[in-house]
Amino acid sequence: MNLTRADGRKVNELRPVRITRHFTEPPEGSVLIECGHTRVMCTATFTPSVPRWRKDSGLGWVTAEYAMLPRATSERTDRESVKGKIGGRTHEISRLIGRCLRGVIDMKALGENQIQLDCDVLQADGGTRTASITGAYVALVDALRWAEKNGHIKSADKVIKDAVSAVSVGVIDGKPMLDLPYVEDSKAMTDMNVAMTGSGAFIEIQGTAEHRPFTRAELGILLDLAEKGNRELQAAQAAALAQD
Amino acid sequence: MNLTRADGRKVNELRPVRITRHFTEPPEGSVLIECGHTRVMCTATFTPSVPRWRKDSGLGWVTAEYAMLPRATSERTDRESVKGKIGGRTHEISRLIGRCLRGVIDMKALGENQIQLDCDVLQADGGTRTASITGAYVALVDALRWAEKNGHIKSADKVIKDAVSAVSVGVIDGKPMLDLPYVEDSKAMTDMNVAMTGSGAFIEIQGTAEHRPFTRAELGILLDLAEKGNRELQAAQAAALAQD
Amino acid sequence: MNLTRADGRKVNELRPVRITRHFTEPPEGSVLIECGHTRVMCTATFTPSVPRWRKDSGLGWVTAEYAMLPRATSERTDRESVKGKIGGRTHEISRLIGRCLRGVIDMKALGENQIQLDCDVLQADGGTRTASITGAYVALVDALRWAEKNGHIKSADKVIKDAVSAVSVGVIDGKPMLDLPYVEDSKAMTDMNVAMTGSGAFIEIQGTAEHRPFTRAELGILLDLAEKGNRELQAAQAAALAQD
Amino acid sequence: MNLTRADGRKVNELRPVRITRHFTEPPEGSVLIECGHTRVMCTATFTPSVPRWRKDSGLGWVTAEYAMLPRATSERTDRESVKGKIGGRTHEISRLIGRCLRGVIDMKALGENQIQLDCDVLQADGGTRTASITGAYVALVDALRWAEKNGHIKSADKVIKDAVSAVSVGVIDGKPMLDLPYVEDSKAMTDMNVAMTGSGAFIEIQGTAEHRPFTRAELGILLDLAEKGNRELQAAQAAALAQD
Amino acid sequence: MNLTRADGRKVNELRPVRITRHFTEPPEGSVLIECGHTRVMCTATFTPSVPRWRKDSGLGWVTAEYAMLPRATSERTDRESVKGKIGGRTHEISRLIGRCLRGVIDMKALGENQIQLDCDVLQADGGTRTASITGAYVALVDALRWAEKNGHIKSADKVIKDAVSAVSVGVIDGKPMLDLPYVEDSKAMTDMNVAMTGSGAFIEIQGTAEHRPFTRAELGILLDLAEKGNRELQAAQAAALAQD
Amino acid sequence: MNLTRADGRKVNELRPVRITRHFTEPPEGSVLIECGHTRVMCTATFTPSVPRWRKDSGLGWVTAEYAMLPRATSERTDRESVKGKIGGRTHEISRLIGRCLRGVIDMKALGENQIQLDCDVLQADGGTRTASITGAYVALVDALRWAEKNGHIKSADKVIKDAVSAVSVGVIDGKPMLDLPYVEDSKAMTDMNVAMTGSGAFIEIQGTAEHRPFTRAELGILLDLAEKGNRELQAAQAAALAQD
Repeated sequence: MNLTRADGRKVNELRPVRITRHFTEPPEGSVLIECGHTRVMCTATFTPSVPRWRKDSGLGWVTAEYAMLPRATSERTDRESVKGKIGGRTHEISRLIGRCLRGVIDMKALGENQIQLDCDVLQADGGTRTASITGAYVALVDALRWAEKNGHIKSADKVIKDAVSAVSVGVIDGKPMLDLPYVEDSKAMTDMNVAMTGSGAFIEIQGTAEHRPFTRAELGILLDLAEKGNRELQAAQAAALAQD
Repeated sequence: MNLTRADGRKVNELRPVRITRHFTEPPEGSVLIECGHTRVMCTATFTPSVPRWRKDSGLGWVTAEYAMLPRATSERTDRESVKGKIGGRTHEISRLIGRCLRGVIDMKALGENQIQLDCDVLQADGGTRTASITGAYVALVDALRWAEKNGHIKSADKVIKDAVSAVSVGVIDGKPMLDLPYVEDSKAMTDMNVAMTGSGAFIEIQGTAEHRPFTRAELGILLDLAEKGNRELQAAQAAALAQD
Repeated sequence: MNLTRADGRKVNELRPVRITRHFTEPPEGSVLIECGHTRVMCTATFTPSVPRWRKDSGLGWVTAEYAMLPRATSERTDRESVKGKIGGRTHEISRLIGRCLRGVIDMKALGENQIQLDCDVLQADGGTRTASITGAYVALVDALRWAEKNGHIKSADKVIKDAVSAVSVGVIDGKPMLDLPYVEDSKAMTDMNVAMTGSGAFIEIQGTAEHRPFTRAELGILLDLAEKGNRELQAAQAAALAQD
Repeated sequence: MNLTRADGRKVNELRPVRITRHFTEPPEGSVLIECGHTRVMCTATFTPSVPRWRKDSGLGWVTAEYAMLPRATSERTDRESVKGKIGGRTHEISRLIGRCLRGVIDMKALGENQIQLDCDVLQADGGTRTASITGAYVALVDALRWAEKNGHIKSADKVIKDAVSAVSVGVIDGKPMLDLPYVEDSKAMTDMNVAMTGSGAFIEIQGTAEHRPFTRAELGILLDLAEKGNRELQAAQAAALAQD
Repeated sequence: MNLTRADGRKVNELRPVRITRHFTEPPEGSVLIECGHTRVMCTATFTPSVPRWRKDSGLGWVTAEYAMLPRATSERTDRESVKGKIGGRTHEISRLIGRCLRGVIDMKALGENQIQLDCDVLQADGGTRTASITGAYVALVDALRWAEKNGHIKSADKVIKDAVSAVSVGVIDGKPMLDLPYVEDSKAMTDMNVAMTGSGAFIEIQGTAEHRPFTRAELGILLDLAEKGNRELQAAQAAALAQD
Repeated sequence: MNLTRADGRKVNELRPVRITRHFTEPPEGSVLIECGHTRVMCTATFTPSVPRWRKDSGLGWVTAEYAMLPRATSERTDRESVKGKIGGRTHEISRLIGRCLRGVIDMKALGENQIQLDCDVLQADGGTRTASITGAYVALVDALRWAEKNGHIKSADKVIKDAVSAVSVGVIDGKPMLDLPYVEDSKAMTDMNVAMTGSGAFIEIQGTAEHRPFTRAELGILLDLAEKGNRELQAAQAAALAQD
């Protein structure tokens, strides 16, 4: 396991992570997360009400939207607003982020309040969906602390049941590896995104092997890598949230 | 493990599966798959050309679209054509089905030909996406046999690298169970869709635990159930394809 | 009038009709109608309320939506949901079906309840709009019987003023003919869809002669054929509704 | 049959018709037709090519689009451009107009040229679709004369097989009547639009009886009225086209 | 300044203006304005309520929509309703017209009432947006007079703070000119639309010099021309409004 | 003129400007511009080809798209991609930016190459459209330098005819002021955006006075302020572009 990769990392090594809180001023939570060259701006909007279908339930709601700026990538991608519709990939990722964050929220403790997470990719180099989840968690905590300070909720800590982070793992040329940049991601035979809680349980596992099915043994190794990566990402989240 | 469920099944028991080939006449492949009360019509359209972006690659293409008829469910759902856009859930499932089927196709052997899979849910009682994958595989084989007979490809067998089927598993009231109908699915804390090849490898694992994270031990049990279910579904596929 | 056609029928002979009630379980009314190779699934959804513009009128409402599955035809047609808009033909047929069914309903007796008819063509071989009307009538009756049984309306019989069915007629190579399959429809110089009540009156006549205008004498013959066809279709409806 | 109506007309009397050619300058054909208070601007655009699907057929194409200006009616209707989609009624009428005009065109004589008819209702008082057909015919002739003069076609007269006009008829309070203004149209139990050629044959009959079915005897009377109306409208078309 | 142009005008001369009030019957205000060959139909719809976001403010609202009929121009332009979206140019002009008219309305005196202006270009020969503003003002006055007569507002005169008109100016081949027809507009290096009140102040100045920047001295000359043109247009408005 | 404002500035003082080049890596030009609290990311994409309508003209093309991230503002705004259409304001601003940048480009020297400018507002505090123009110019220069270095064009300097920047001016409580933040902008009676070239000529003047018309004298003062502001912004652009 000490083989190195194009960027000099070991197979079980994360890219450098940097989490900048209060990246912009207007949102209740605003985070820039950088995982290697991937940069995602995650904002959390707190609204003291819920969508109509959720009214009078006593429960809160958390939802997410993901998007790429046109030149986040080396080829420009057309804006979905100009095309007049959202593509399947965007839909899929937005839904994934929403489920992961809802997975660590106590909706009863949140009360009839809503948090909208917006993850906009400024620069993409693989792992934008997992970086979005990891960054959105920090923005979510900031928005809940804001809500506590402003009397919208009693306690941010009671609303957050656990931390959540996510990382990609994959098999490249037969080798399982952690945290794939674009160059590796595009060659991966198998590719898995794993979201885990602070207590080490899974919230989402999405493994896809369009190019070569994977065995149960390979799955085991990939999950080991993902656990290691998520533990480290959660340490970075905690460090960022400890500052003030 | 011999606890019974609302419908009398054991926790590791599939719902009755029925696969009807040649369900309608026009398509190259047309299958009605019934998994308990879930009924999906899967058609495969063979076209002797590929989308523009795939031209001159020597490779074929397989794609899928999933949809629900308005009264497949107990409450009527509005048509996406009338709403003027496709929802996130539909997009997500269409993409999943496409990836699973591409996972068992040798694109080189297919040559510059395209197969479009259409999975329309006539009646929904949980597991519509997994039933779609299982049924679409049979329609795909029929379309390839048609293409072989009509001289579009040399050999259907060379194009199909392996069988693929999918099944849902989940944890209900703390119990891992196989093949969830709607009533169980809506109570599941954890819910996983597992697509496997005939040789027992994974093509897709999508586990989601919005309501309660799951441990690695639970994951193991769920994958055991999924393996059992997929083996049986593949036996049903093989039986249906053996008839003529 | 004893000339035979490609499928062996006489010019004044209907294709075999089969009406299957309770085709699927969730809807209040669910019918599969088969007219020769044409197969349409017609569901009726009963809702105990009316659209906003109809509120406080004391009157009910009946509406219809028609759609074709992508491979109902020999060439695949793109989904209107994917295209993001409904085409003119679909709009035109949906409106026709709605008007025909409203034509036999006593809106006052229905009260402030709504019935939505969904006609989805599983297999198309000409006459899909007339089959939809004929089948939707049976689904509508089933939904009203359900509503009576469940106390939403006093009497299904009072809501239904009369039966309604529809059939196509046309002039092919100068010969007026009843109930055109696709192969005849595409050669028709004149093409007419006629919806009639059980008492023999017209609800809709849509004659179109893009390829050769028709005389008043020809119109007379076509209407005679349509009357004969509709009487027979209404006998089939009655027979289906008599079973239980 | 000498009963008078709200506007003083007899039951078999048309509203005053006025046809103004060369209403605007840019189009190849531009007509303002006024039928009572209904005013429709009909333009014909000649293009020396056909849509892609018609290429290399040696045949021409004629198509039509109908629209209402927002304040053509006493209540303002929202623009379909702003709503982002075309409604069913607009689609239905556009298709009707196109079929009627194609019904009198010899596509072979037209050659690979296209004519697009645009019918924009400036003021609506019933019968806008029939006025559109009657006016569009005159615009079409003007565009073909223009095309002949400019060498795009050999002879306008050979392209036009016959004249076409259309008129509405209906049963109001049990009385069949010709050419319904809005106030009558909205009370009509039965309502029929009849397009006829100069030689007295039918191109389109669209009778709808959502409010009360009609008998074959009533149909006969309505068609008599329609024939009389169309003969008079065709006289007005001929008179307008005779001027220069 | 006595150089003549293609159409014989002097550089500081307006095209002939004709304002026809009560052009159509249904709207509260309906004006046809002709500036040379440009013809725009401007209607004003008075509604005794305001959009939701304006409720309980005590203030009124004025809004505008601009559109071109397909053959207003020498080349047919596709309908925005058919394309399913409104283009940038249409949006930009609609917003401009709305701002100009709001600029002369006392929203408090209007009370919670709304006026919607619809400007539909029947024939385009340059200056359609400025003709729309000039014509819409007259339609707006008529709608307010109607509202006064019908007791919706106390006094039309109190609602209208001042007149407003607009005209284009531009630099063609180095010469500043007033009121550009299409042929000049398309050659203009600089192009400016100037909306002014009756008291000679500016409501909108939109100068654009995509093809050659303009100096402050040129700006001065253009504004002089625009002042002269607007004074004359306001005289035409006043003359039209004086008739009854 | 030495009155101070809420943020301590004089009426003729710009907010602090900061221009960061190479803000992200993938684009040919990537600039973050900060004007006070307003922050816009401007990228320039160079493509060695032109849109179809521009083919074989020998000329290049420059176009721009503007958008706001959902939480650039204190209230979250819904994504236009989710709404399925672009609003009028977005369209208007995108077109303005495009015209301004085209105004300083020699399309012949650019040759058949295209530059797409994307201006995404990360944080909005007034003046986002003028900051976009000022920032986009720097990104455009970087993209042209890249194109020169990579042999797509001969000389970036020949393509760029002059610099361009833009600034807002307005009248607040009767006082003309330079560079309005949101709090001033929302109170402005008159509001003008002025784009100027390095040589001091105007490319765009957009003055709007929905709330109080402005006189020619006021216009003069506003243009003086705009000239001062633009000279300073151009100094900042030059300083940024001088670095390497």
